[in-house]
Amino acid sequence: MSVAFDRQVDALGTHRVIEPAGAMPQSAHKIDNTPVAFDNEILCDVETLNIDSASFKQIRDHCAGDAARIAEHIMQTVRERGKQHNPVTGSGGMFIGRVLKIGERLRGKIDLHAGDRIASLVSLTLTPLYMESVTHVDVETGRVWIRGKAILFESGLWAKLPGDIDDDVALAVLDVAGAPAQVRRMTRAGMTVVVIGADGKSGMLSCAQAKVRAGSQGRVIGVAPDVSTPSAQMLENAGLVDALVQADARNALELSSKVAAVVPDLADLVINCVNVPGTELSSILCTKQDGTVYFFSMSTSFTAAALGAEGVGKDVTMIIGNGYAKGHADCALQTLRDHPEIHRYFNGKYARR
Amino acid sequence: MSVAFDRQVDALGTHRVIEPAGAMPQSAHKIDNTPVAFDNEILCDVETLNIDSASFKQIRDHCAGDAARIAEHIMQTVRERGKQHNPVTGSGGMFIGRVLKIGERLRGKIDLHAGDRIASLVSLTLTPLYMESVTHVDVETGRVWIRGKAILFESGLWAKLPGDIDDDVALAVLDVAGAPAQVRRMTRAGMTVVVIGADGKSGMLSCAQAKVRAGSQGRVIGVAPDVSTPSAQMLENAGLVDALVQADARNALELSSKVAAVVPDLADLVINCVNVPGTELSSILCTKQDGTVYFFSMSTSFTAAALGAEGVGKDVTMIIGNGYAKGHADCALQTLRDHPEIHRYFNGKYARR
Repeated sequence: MSVAFDRQVDALGTHRVIEPAGAMPQSAHKIDNTPVAFDNEILCDVETLNIDSASFKQIRDHCAGDAARIAEHIMQTVRERGKQHNPVTGSGGMFIGRVLKIGERLRGKIDLHAGDRIASLVSLTLTPLYMESVTHVDVETGRVWIRGKAILFESGLWAKLPGDIDDDVALAVLDVAGAPAQVRRMTRAGMTVVVIGADGKSGMLSCAQAKVRAGSQGRVIGVAPDVSTPSAQMLENAGLVDALVQADARNALELSSKVAAVVPDLADLVINCVNVPGTELSSILCTKQDGTVYFFSMSTSFTAAALGAEGVGKDVTMIIGNGYAKGHADCALQTLRDHPEIHRYFNGKYARR
Repeated sequence: MSVAFDRQVDALGTHRVIEPAGAMPQSAHKIDNTPVAFDNEILCDVETLNIDSASFKQIRDHCAGDAARIAEHIMQTVRERGKQHNPVTGSGGMFIGRVLKIGERLRGKIDLHAGDRIASLVSLTLTPLYMESVTHVDVETGRVWIRGKAILFESGLWAKLPGDIDDDVALAVLDVAGAPAQVRRMTRAGMTVVVIGADGKSGMLSCAQAKVRAGSQGRVIGVAPDVSTPSAQMLENAGLVDALVQADARNALELSSKVAAVVPDLADLVINCVNVPGTELSSILCTKQDGTVYFFSMSTSFTAAALGAEGVGKDVTMIIGNGYAKGHADCALQTLRDHPEIHRYFNGKYARR
């Protein structure tokens, strides 16, 4: 266990918790966002926040899609909590920025220096964030440009931004880095894999990894609410899916019957990458007995999944998508490099214009 | 796929959904609880409801522990929804009763007859329930005696009550049957297993299975908020745990440091069986890198688990406890038979006095 039991500063950042007492930074209602690094912290100048997809959708809906209202909504959350932790969805996002100062106890122990540009790979739900202002909101992608500073704890994860990939594209990829890394581990040759929400960014990267790993004997089925969109078409044209299925993931019977029409034996592995609630049962019904469902959607309800599987008598393994896996940043960025069609699509959608 | 696409009646019970249209029985706000069996349904006379532990705790707290208020609260939920589906916790429970009628299309196809006494193994969150009255509430255990009828769908799971185990004890065991069955599958010889909430009913059965499977080279650590209780003491005296740790599972740092003091390398497998929210990080911090956390607690928050693991940089597999596993009823009942100390404890606590 790497936790340092030092009352003053600990690796997990509990010294920053304001309330409730005894909470961890993620579970805390409010944390201390003073923009000064303790001995074991990293202080960063923040350029962009990449709000988690489920959270941004909720904020955007709440603010009727108005950029100024979205900006004020985010400022308000951070003023109240010391972090961009959406109280409705419980989720956050990540940031991109430049290292200003590395605490004395960390210096020389990590491959990072003042001036390096990095992306945070821990959630904004536990990252002390001090915001002066919002300078721009991209209502379409959930990226928010700000003036402000953030703190990374000793246990925090980060990635240096690669030279060969656009910063904003790298941020978009790193935000969902857990998905392709986990899909890579879970998929074996010959498997039938269904990716629900294949047309989103984690979905596209998941399809690419599933296709490579499942091999020529395997099948990858992408499900999207509209298969005529540029991202869905890209998946098909690039051969990253064997078939596309158009269905609303909230309608479990419709979706599962359409998938069953393509793969009657159902899926060995279902990857849920959607950003709307109520899709647990669709995922479960697409999975064969003894199969696995991987939920990456932050909109997943634990009880809906647990009781849903029991309710339909499905003996399937249901996994909570972990945002972290060893080497996940490298895996995600490499997926982009290995698939120029996805890289091109991400450049078109996420690179700053 | 076993779903019958018959508009009139389907195996999953969607023909009973009232609102919203297109929902499944579990996700529906309201279902039709008319106490008459369709062709592919089973009508039962209900004797007892065994409310899920997280749900009953919420109801009991809301009603200040008053039996009459709890009874009215449950009646009100069922009047409104046609099922005992707690709108706050999202969870249900199960029932015990006697088969009144088996629909024509099921007769002869299943090993069940009118008059058989059964326990439902699907959640009350999807079970049409028609209640006339509550006759008794056991405020301590969450058992509720009623006059009423329930419907089991074709896809629904049930177990005939065994002759050698007290009915109410069998119900208590079957309610958590998924846990010992999954622990049995997950635990391998030599593993270190930590059971959080070891003193509850799923916790006790999980300890027993873990101890048998982990073998003499493995270690089973039980965590409970108070290790002086009869259930915790029983675990120790019966040799079902190698050590007991007293800690509040909501305090992640305290719990994990106490567990680390006993097993410095942490756990290969952590089983979370608590019935309070906010214990995700405790479970994650007790788990070694590459280990597995199995969440059986219906109080688990999907996002707290997903972001918690990422926030502390733990590459662990987190599994949503599935209430169903092949043979789970037999496994759970056999666990009781194989461990007379647990059977005795369950008899003392759950058998009707």
